[in-house]
Amino acid sequence: MSAAVNVAIVGATGAVGQEFLTVLAERDFPIRSLKLLASARSAGKRVEYRGQPYVVEELTRDSFEGVQIAFFSAGGGISKEFAPAAVASKAVVVDNTSAFRMKEGIPLVVPEVNAEQIQRHNGLIANPNCSTIIMNVPVWPLHRANRVKRIIVSTYQAVSGAGAWGLHELEAQQRAYVSGEPIAKEKFPHQIVNNLFSHNTKIAENGYNEEENKMVQETRKIFGDPRIMVAATCVRVPVPRAHSESINLEFERPMSVEQVRAILSNAPGVKIVDDRDANHFPMPLEASGQDDVLVGRIRQDISRDDGRGIELFVSGDQLRKGAATNAVQIAERLI
Amino acid sequence: MSAAVNVAIVGATGAVGQEFLTVLAERDFPIRSLKLLASARSAGKRVEYRGQPYVVEELTRDSFEGVQIAFFSAGGGISKEFAPAAVASKAVVVDNTSAFRMKEGIPLVVPEVNAEQIQRHNGLIANPNCSTIIMNVPVWPLHRANRVKRIIVSTYQAVSGAGAWGLHELEAQQRAYVSGEPIAKEKFPHQIVNNLFSHNTKIAENGYNEEENKMVQETRKIFGDPRIMVAATCVRVPVPRAHSESINLEFERPMSVEQVRAILSNAPGVKIVDDRDANHFPMPLEASGQDDVLVGRIRQDISRDDGRGIELFVSGDQLRKGAATNAVQIAERLI
Repeated sequence: MSAAVNVAIVGATGAVGQEFLTVLAERDFPIRSLKLLASARSAGKRVEYRGQPYVVEELTRDSFEGVQIAFFSAGGGISKEFAPAAVASKAVVVDNTSAFRMKEGIPLVVPEVNAEQIQRHNGLIANPNCSTIIMNVPVWPLHRANRVKRIIVSTYQAVSGAGAWGLHELEAQQRAYVSGEPIAKEKFPHQIVNNLFSHNTKIAENGYNEEENKMVQETRKIFGDPRIMVAATCVRVPVPRAHSESINLEFERPMSVEQVRAILSNAPGVKIVDDRDANHFPMPLEASGQDDVLVGRIRQDISRDDGRGIELFVSGDQLRKGAATNAVQIAERLI
Repeated sequence: MSAAVNVAIVGATGAVGQEFLTVLAERDFPIRSLKLLASARSAGKRVEYRGQPYVVEELTRDSFEGVQIAFFSAGGGISKEFAPAAVASKAVVVDNTSAFRMKEGIPLVVPEVNAEQIQRHNGLIANPNCSTIIMNVPVWPLHRANRVKRIIVSTYQAVSGAGAWGLHELEAQQRAYVSGEPIAKEKFPHQIVNNLFSHNTKIAENGYNEEENKMVQETRKIFGDPRIMVAATCVRVPVPRAHSESINLEFERPMSVEQVRAILSNAPGVKIVDDRDANHFPMPLEASGQDDVLVGRIRQDISRDDGRGIELFVSGDQLRKGAATNAVQIAERLI
């Protein structure tokens, strides 16, 4: 590809779509032409990119002529329907949905982990689930130094992970609560203000929901380690932005807090926030708007006596590193 | 003791103190006389109990004459200073603070677990930490059936666990956020609305904070099993009331979901809320105001292949079963 490329964003009006525009501008991504695509409902809307107005066009199979990189983030159904047309038009698709992630032959990439997979694409590269990315960025460098055999993770996931509507729903419920009005549920199955609930994706046969099973399967594919064992509990909390995760790691050999700190202090995409005296650790409020995954509460797992356990608490912006930033990083390595 | 007793509540104006009044009335606790005690600052305040006004009196060493049961919930310092005076006056103290919990010879009681310890008191019985109680109620009956060797737990703790001020601070920040005003921090070290943070208690040498270490030490004492291994991560979330916990259990022998369900469906103090089809699991909103600990997300731990792992998600009202209800249950067994 040449230095400046023709870019399309599918789902340009969504939470991740909007974040794509912010991240592309911030990173000075070399764009020759920019096409913003969305459903017929959103077509005609005006969206700004670097101070210039763009009109959102309706997504069709013919939208991709001349497009070189197409970022998809409009849901798995849209990707399944339209990504093949983009690929047929010779665009490289970076897909932010779950549609193709587990398909054999399609790279599933976190650049800090497996950037070498990017060049093996056949027109389509999948961006992992946000909770997976946020966990993988700090765990991978540890895994390389001392194989991680097992991960037990509990998440604290922000409402905007469900889409821009999740943020609107939390805010509407906050306003209602403060004014003493009835709290209306719209799309979330349960009240989210002043509450939390198990991630509202379908529960599979094994008792885990889709989000939890993604964290297992995707981590194995990204790490290239089908033996790594993961048990996840995914929970939605009344936080606007940035997912947090409580992570318990079991290593093959003993691992010390000092080793973990040394490894993570040099790890790309990681920022250590671990001030025990000041009680200052990763928080979604501070992770929001950042590309780094904040990592803290680094401590030896006291529930084992063989020194092979480490516990961490992390927060990462799921719209940035968990979605748009990761996809743009992939695209940067394509050009 | 006779059928109706003389009761004192120390810390009557606090979040737990107020809950004591609600729980005593609801359970029709046989009160002959009721003395409400608090600091000089709160003395003179009027508080209702069963429609009758009571005037809060200043707590002194002489407050306990004729008192038979004294509930303490005004902080560890107050308990250390005044509980001995209450005991000297022949009251039995049920102490809701951490002051005496780990002292040898002082029973630490969750009635569903170790009620037999109540009669071994020497004037003082300790009520465990709220997060410990909420975890112990569902884990104990499983532990009895098949020894639990190791627990990995991550909490989602409500602001009122810090005291009535925690709730006021969350609400003040919610109002400020909704009106677009600056969000003021008062007593919490970090913003709590739209955020979450590691439990703001001191971090010990081992890297765990006080709340986390309580869950380890207290569980060992209550279960009478010094070998049980626990690793906890305690997190404060923007929820007014009821703590939730993501619990990973390792058993001595294989344990199935069906066995867990069968045991928990007959366990005292437990209510199973585990509807996979409806995606309905324990939530703080539904646990609030209830004495039962809600238990759901019951599933086989897929991160191990020996069938010895079970995962749970629980919610329990930390002011009721986590504090006032547990203490009143202890008192009921004293009379």
